[in-house]
Amino acid sequence: MLSIKDENNQREKVALIGCGLIGQSWAISFLSAGFDVSLFDPVDGVTVQAKENIKAKLTDLQNHGLLENKNISDYLDKIHLAQNLSHAVRGSIYVQESGPEDLDIKKELTKKIDTATVADIPIASSTSGIPASLYARDVKGRYRCLVAHPINPPHLIPAVEIVPALFTSENITQAVKKIIFSIGKQPLELKKEIPGFVVNRLQGALLIEAFNLIKDGISSAEDIDKAISEGLGLRWSFMGPFQTIHLNAPEGIVGYVNRYEKMYREMFDDPDVDWSSVVQLGLEEELLNLYSLEEQKKQEERRDHKLIQLLIHKKSSEKSTQ
Amino acid sequence: MLSIKDENNQREKVALIGCGLIGQSWAISFLSAGFDVSLFDPVDGVTVQAKENIKAKLTDLQNHGLLENKNISDYLDKIHLAQNLSHAVRGSIYVQESGPEDLDIKKELTKKIDTATVADIPIASSTSGIPASLYARDVKGRYRCLVAHPINPPHLIPAVEIVPALFTSENITQAVKKIIFSIGKQPLELKKEIPGFVVNRLQGALLIEAFNLIKDGISSAEDIDKAISEGLGLRWSFMGPFQTIHLNAPEGIVGYVNRYEKMYREMFDDPDVDWSSVVQLGLEEELLNLYSLEEQKKQEERRDHKLIQLLIHKKSSEKSTQ
Repeated sequence: MLSIKDENNQREKVALIGCGLIGQSWAISFLSAGFDVSLFDPVDGVTVQAKENIKAKLTDLQNHGLLENKNISDYLDKIHLAQNLSHAVRGSIYVQESGPEDLDIKKELTKKIDTATVADIPIASSTSGIPASLYARDVKGRYRCLVAHPINPPHLIPAVEIVPALFTSENITQAVKKIIFSIGKQPLELKKEIPGFVVNRLQGALLIEAFNLIKDGISSAEDIDKAISEGLGLRWSFMGPFQTIHLNAPEGIVGYVNRYEKMYREMFDDPDVDWSSVVQLGLEEELLNLYSLEEQKKQEERRDHKLIQLLIHKKSSEKSTQ
Repeated sequence: MLSIKDENNQREKVALIGCGLIGQSWAISFLSAGFDVSLFDPVDGVTVQAKENIKAKLTDLQNHGLLENKNISDYLDKIHLAQNLSHAVRGSIYVQESGPEDLDIKKELTKKIDTATVADIPIASSTSGIPASLYARDVKGRYRCLVAHPINPPHLIPAVEIVPALFTSENITQAVKKIIFSIGKQPLELKKEIPGFVVNRLQGALLIEAFNLIKDGISSAEDIDKAISEGLGLRWSFMGPFQTIHLNAPEGIVGYVNRYEKMYREMFDDPDVDWSSVVQLGLEEELLNLYSLEEQKKQEERRDHKLIQLLIHKKSSEKSTQ
């Protein structure tokens, strides 16, 4: 339905509405991938400043070899500063709104974008917490509205949460995933809206426990930070929590849950911890499809080699940034 | 109180009781740091097999440049296979027990180690869940018993949890931290015992949320894994959760909590989320001492450069391990 290159095999243009730090990060990601970007911000002067910041960050990325080695001016030539919303969305195949985190402002802004933009062009919001079902409910073209939430700092972190509302069209959701993937990001699709989406819920769960440990006088903040940065976070930088535990028992997730479910239930005094049911109702099947048990020995070796490489990397990186 | 080098500036000997995977990992860490190690396992043949495994892993580490470039046989010469417990602990300045996770076995074993070992030598257990207050309560020399819990895979992950019981002497705790630090590990001290210690509680809190997200049909396990491995886990591989949020608001932790405490409270429908009190009661002070706000701009740049370097590293590491 949606082409991300035109007939000359050139990347198309996207419109970025709202040009604070998040909008600027989107610009960097789209420019790096060869897109043209139209910037619009209702506040005078913001887009000019944004272009300066984008230039500085592009240069930084290039100096680190993370950007194709062409002239920075070639990227900057693909930035179009729009005088108004209609101008920005004209000819764009995708609109990313990064306005303030305020329901009323977002409602109003989304309506304006919808009115100005031709049919079937997706309109995504960078909101970290307001679901599309709230801010786009009364928008005429709400079928093409959804959340595409990047993680801070967004020009560096690959994960982007894609959160459609019930009224969002499946075609739009898939098209947005494709665009996000085409700029080197990792789209994570939520099948249902939930407060905080997935990333902030995972971070929140960990933070709540971390604050409790401080409150109860168990450990210092410095040591809790090290439990992550010199402990769990090393594996997690290349392997998520499910893959990690699937690999930590010879029988995979089933073995892990048989062995440790009771321990976690008692640890948190939480009778609702019923992981066995979750495993039976599909989690085991998904994990076995992703990571077969026959490969487990090999994956364990891969994990250890990745850890070794990460440790070497950390050592040299600490030296160079001290 | 405790010297980790003898009069000839040679590293001393440590005793490792129980030579499964965990015991072997301890051996690698101590050998890498120049210590002699005595291995003892009650099951016949285990120490011989352990020595073979240690050799393979040392070779692997050396091939990756993570081990001083001397002959592997120089390391292996420092391994002493003990015929019995007394033999193993004789002349050792430290005892690390890595027996089965069974309270009765651990009680019995700790008593035996205590009887065989001269006064004031620390006796640490690798247990991931049984507190010293339980397994060492009836041990005569319980003042020198405590937990030193490594993280899997222990020869690669730096974090080690140090968990004294109320009866453990402060001198012993500090001596153990010093020894653990001297082998290139990061000792994390718990001020009080708590089920699961710190690392497994942090992992458990995240896992409980991850299982809930699957149960509620919000997202696939694959996408939840990516939320970490392509999202939060990148920062966490060099920066813990408190430093992360301290850096995410211009006023540091106070600003972050003012802005987001309510959001997390509502996200989890948890009225007990009272982070403001925790901040006021010392957390702000600790974080400001660790990471001053005047340095924040610089630390933000450092974080971004570390992320850039990590992304470059991940890219090349993916190529080399495919």
